[in-house]
Amino acid sequence: MPTLVIANKCYSSWSLRPWLLMKQLGVAFDEISIPLDLPDTKEKVLKHSPAGKVPILIDGDVTVWESISIMEYIGEAYGVPVWPADRKARAMARSIAAEMHAGFLALRSACPMNLGKKYASRDRSQAVAQDVTRFSEIVREARQRFGAGGTFLFGAFSAADAMYAPLATRLDTYSITLDTTTRAYVDAILSLPTFQEWRSAALKEEWIVPADEVEEDAIENYRKAA
Amino acid sequence: MPTLVIANKCYSSWSLRPWLLMKQLGVAFDEISIPLDLPDTKEKVLKHSPAGKVPILIDGDVTVWESISIMEYIGEAYGVPVWPADRKARAMARSIAAEMHAGFLALRSACPMNLGKKYASRDRSQAVAQDVTRFSEIVREARQRFGAGGTFLFGAFSAADAMYAPLATRLDTYSITLDTTTRAYVDAILSLPTFQEWRSAALKEEWIVPADEVEEDAIENYRKAA
Ligand SMILES: N[C@@H](CCC(=O)N[C@@H](CS)C(=O)NCC(=O)O)C(=O)O
Ligand SMILES: N[C@@H](CCC(=O)N[C@@H](CS)C(=O)NCC(=O)O)C(=O)O
Repeated sequence: MPTLVIANKCYSSWSLRPWLLMKQLGVAFDEISIPLDLPDTKEKVLKHSPAGKVPILIDGDVTVWESISIMEYIGEAYGVPVWPADRKARAMARSIAAEMHAGFLALRSACPMNLGKKYASRDRSQAVAQDVTRFSEIVREARQRFGAGGTFLFGAFSAADAMYAPLATRLDTYSITLDTTTRAYVDAILSLPTFQEWRSAALKEEWIVPADEVEEDAIENYRKAA
Repeated sequence: MPTLVIANKCYSSWSLRPWLLMKQLGVAFDEISIPLDLPDTKEKVLKHSPAGKVPILIDGDVTVWESISIMEYIGEAYGVPVWPADRKARAMARSIAAEMHAGFLALRSACPMNLGKKYASRDRSQAVAQDVTRFSEIVREARQRFGAGGTFLFGAFSAADAMYAPLATRLDTYSITLDTTTRAYVDAILSLPTFQEWRSAALKEEWIVPADEVEEDAIENYRKAA
């Protein structure tokens, strides 16, 4: 059974991605959790991967790091449908997954993933607004062209959804206004039982990561300890 | 025959990646070039891909964007060895390719790819130095574990080398001090006939992209027009 090394479920957006994919595709795995931002975090992560970041997948004598390559590995090693079967859909799925992997920097930095809080709607920078627009475009195009047969980007849940899941949580956490297609997609992600399982565990965590707590007043605080 | 949409060969590091991979693997393609930083650049790019960035691969009715997903697509569609055959090597190759795709931000922003110039060695920030160190670690580990049988990261040229090729040019352009293993690897990339072909075309271009011209005195200027 492979082991997935992850960080705090409340904050670690990259960890959520392969965790959700493996849960959705029924690939069993053990978890090792290394909380972020503690004096020994880096040292602990470096024991598993020279790149010093989570998520990391350890499968016997193979170590894979970076969310997107873990997803490719899972598809190859476990023969599960990580990507859509149709080649046009698969090309788009891989392209938008990669767009997420290297992009959406404005939204990612202004609105860190934080499952413990909810913030009021407010004006965001133009760069953040552009990221939201691009996300809506992606949802609309994928759902329209390939979404029949399911509520996810390409119908059935795929690695593309796993890549965008943390972004869906951010749009909700920061009360960002969305068109109905995008809102429906965000809700489809948030209501997944596997996501709910992750979220419940996140709300039981006690660590606070100051870098991921924005200077805005929360309208909801879901964690007892926070 | 697929078409690869790219930008200026002098500056467009992301364009170089799939171009070099396809040339190395013998996948024939047409090129469309859209120079960066002109008033109509964005409009022209958006005609080919909704993400608004190059490179873009158009193969019949399939469009793929983002360097890393273009590489996966090429492997699947053309049956060429984009990744190493050994599964451990392949896992590492995909992981480091993804590390490049989302990382090395300090080095990328301080030292833009610019094939037309050479700059003197100088002190760089700690963040840049860390990126250089991580690159050297990657080269050392890949060459030591998987490099037998060739001069590239995993012996034969793979997508991992294509991903790191622009970084190799930067280390050379900015005269960054390297250990001998890393230097030998950089030289292996720079002396590839396919890379030389790209570079000759780059030196014939006349466009200047101010954002990619750093405020340092060049010790060499390889372009007539620059
Ligand atoms: N591009 C990476 C990003 C991974 C990443 O940034 N992980 C964060 C946690 S969400 C991390 O490990 N931070 C710890 C550190 O940098 O010390 C991926 O796709 O996996
Ligand atoms: N993550 C993308 C990066 C692509 C990218 O940033 N391309 C630049 C040229 S090197 C671009 O298209 N810039 C034009 C623009 O942003 O308007 C990839 O891997 O392909």
